[in-house]
Amino acid sequence: MSGTAAYYVGDRTFSIEAVEAPSTGGDQVTIDVAYTGICGTDLHAYLGHMDQRIGLHRVIGHEMSGVVAAIGANVDNAKVGDRVVVRPLDHCGTCPACQAGHAHICHHLKFLGLDTDGAFQSQWTVPAHTIHHLPDSLSLKEAALIEPLAVACHDVSRAELKDGEDVLVIGGGPIGMLIAMVARQRGGKVIVSEVNDFRLDMARKLGMTAINPTETDVVAAVDEATRGNGADVVLEVSGTQAGADLMTEVVATRGRIVMVAIHAERRQVDLFRFFWREIEMLGARVYEPADYDAAISLLADGAVDAPAIITDVRPLGDIGDAFADLTGNPRSMKTLLKIVDVDG
Amino acid sequence: MSGTAAYYVGDRTFSIEAVEAPSTGGDQVTIDVAYTGICGTDLHAYLGHMDQRIGLHRVIGHEMSGVVAAIGANVDNAKVGDRVVVRPLDHCGTCPACQAGHAHICHHLKFLGLDTDGAFQSQWTVPAHTIHHLPDSLSLKEAALIEPLAVACHDVSRAELKDGEDVLVIGGGPIGMLIAMVARQRGGKVIVSEVNDFRLDMARKLGMTAINPTETDVVAAVDEATRGNGADVVLEVSGTQAGADLMTEVVATRGRIVMVAIHAERRQVDLFRFFWREIEMLGARVYEPADYDAAISLLADGAVDAPAIITDVRPLGDIGDAFADLTGNPRSMKTLLKIVDVDG
Repeated sequence: MSGTAAYYVGDRTFSIEAVEAPSTGGDQVTIDVAYTGICGTDLHAYLGHMDQRIGLHRVIGHEMSGVVAAIGANVDNAKVGDRVVVRPLDHCGTCPACQAGHAHICHHLKFLGLDTDGAFQSQWTVPAHTIHHLPDSLSLKEAALIEPLAVACHDVSRAELKDGEDVLVIGGGPIGMLIAMVARQRGGKVIVSEVNDFRLDMARKLGMTAINPTETDVVAAVDEATRGNGADVVLEVSGTQAGADLMTEVVATRGRIVMVAIHAERRQVDLFRFFWREIEMLGARVYEPADYDAAISLLADGAVDAPAIITDVRPLGDIGDAFADLTGNPRSMKTLLKIVDVDG
Repeated sequence: MSGTAAYYVGDRTFSIEAVEAPSTGGDQVTIDVAYTGICGTDLHAYLGHMDQRIGLHRVIGHEMSGVVAAIGANVDNAKVGDRVVVRPLDHCGTCPACQAGHAHICHHLKFLGLDTDGAFQSQWTVPAHTIHHLPDSLSLKEAALIEPLAVACHDVSRAELKDGEDVLVIGGGPIGMLIAMVARQRGGKVIVSEVNDFRLDMARKLGMTAINPTETDVVAAVDEATRGNGADVVLEVSGTQAGADLMTEVVATRGRIVMVAIHAERRQVDLFRFFWREIEMLGARVYEPADYDAAISLLADGAVDAPAIITDVRPLGDIGDAFADLTGNPRSMKTLLKIVDVDG
């Protein structure tokens, strides 16, 4: 059996190619890919920002769901037909981060779908240790959201959010919106700061307080909402200087800032405010196995309305248009590509 | 009985004036001041950086020790003759920080000796709740170091330093040196980064590893000392852009940075590194009561050689020369002013 793969070949272009059926190594599983979402990182790749890392003939994509098609000889955690998602991290096991128990931020981490070929193809072969099983109640379409939802679970967990705390999410894109959902589900009183009207509207429809920092004084709004306390937890998801300014202004004394965004350049940061108010800041990157478990539970239980962020679903053959649309359409949030028609 | 006070009157000048004996309010104690150290903050005041806050007729000074001379009618935690130090913080009790149990960083904090008259005078009257008693084994001269040592205890406590962890202290001035001592006493393997030769030499005499970042690659040195792990804890005490650069380069994955320094301007900070390595940063300001208790114990037990930082002791009348010398002499660390000749 052969399949189809969408290769990123540079210059905002994908090449759809027929590929041989993959061989499945002893510690691997091969998955029939049902749905794969387009991540912000995939967009960076598409825009050419990661050519040096990924090269010009790479299948990207990692926000996926699917059904196990084959297992290697040593695999005992999956069988053919299992409905699964992949936690796309392969660690070295020997670096200081791995040794300290932080394998998810391994110093030699391979991110599957960037450093190896990914899930914008009909069959994906991955290390067996990366799979998580899906409960029957969860559709494969919804399950394609587990990866970004696990990011959100990790980010909120890093904040050690307590019931009733005030939360500000700076940036209401797909990850920010999922963070807002998880924070609210865990008892936070959530405000989202976002400049895009479509996203503001989505946040409000989801029951959040959402404010536009170009129209409203966010510091004053948070002060009023928190009786002068400030936000106990601020999640910076915007990746902008404005976000870096706002985070220290708006956070409570002894509050926590979670650094979720990828800031491509160094930012001016008010370190005096860190000192003066004993602010804490925590970096948060990808996820740990427990975050996947949490995301699967939240989605299976319907505890968060993550599917609300899906604004488009297209066949794999439309991948070029799908990426082009995401870079230009202010009303897009999460696009899924439907890859193979499998059960579930 | 009348006394003597040194008033800061602007323009790097003190005026020594005779003052009336103070009256002691119901909730106050009046202390015969034995020794008062010159803090970095006092130097800022002397240099005119704080004129707006403190005015031009202010007794500054707060790193003190002394003997209780009078107590107010409601005071039950002290008696005349008690040997004491003052934790120079007066909080409001009602702001969000106070309500959350962080009175030491009260939003309306009065710092005694800046926002009120301080300890460069023969008798100092303070709220009774600010005093801590001294054990007999501790001399009043040594006890004048308790305030800065409590700062160091607070900073190291914020890092939750564990036995055997690698620690980098960026900046080996009086506070940096005390932090290095406390971190080592609590089981840290400490490296000090400092540019001043006299301070490098002092750190080495105290048994620390000390390196000059203008001569040695600190990142490489820490990497070598930590087998590529990086420093588990970095305390940024330099207040410089170079320190802000170094802190993120040198800290371990999931390591903690404690922001001790007062950065007078915003700094370029590598927020990407916070994300990538899940770094944590914690602001640390002044001290809590437990930090005073810890500092008193450490000093009374001789567990840290804090008195090694005393490079000069002068009478109060020499205050002008003492401040001038501290601003210009690279071989000075901590100067104490001897105020009143009291027992102890």
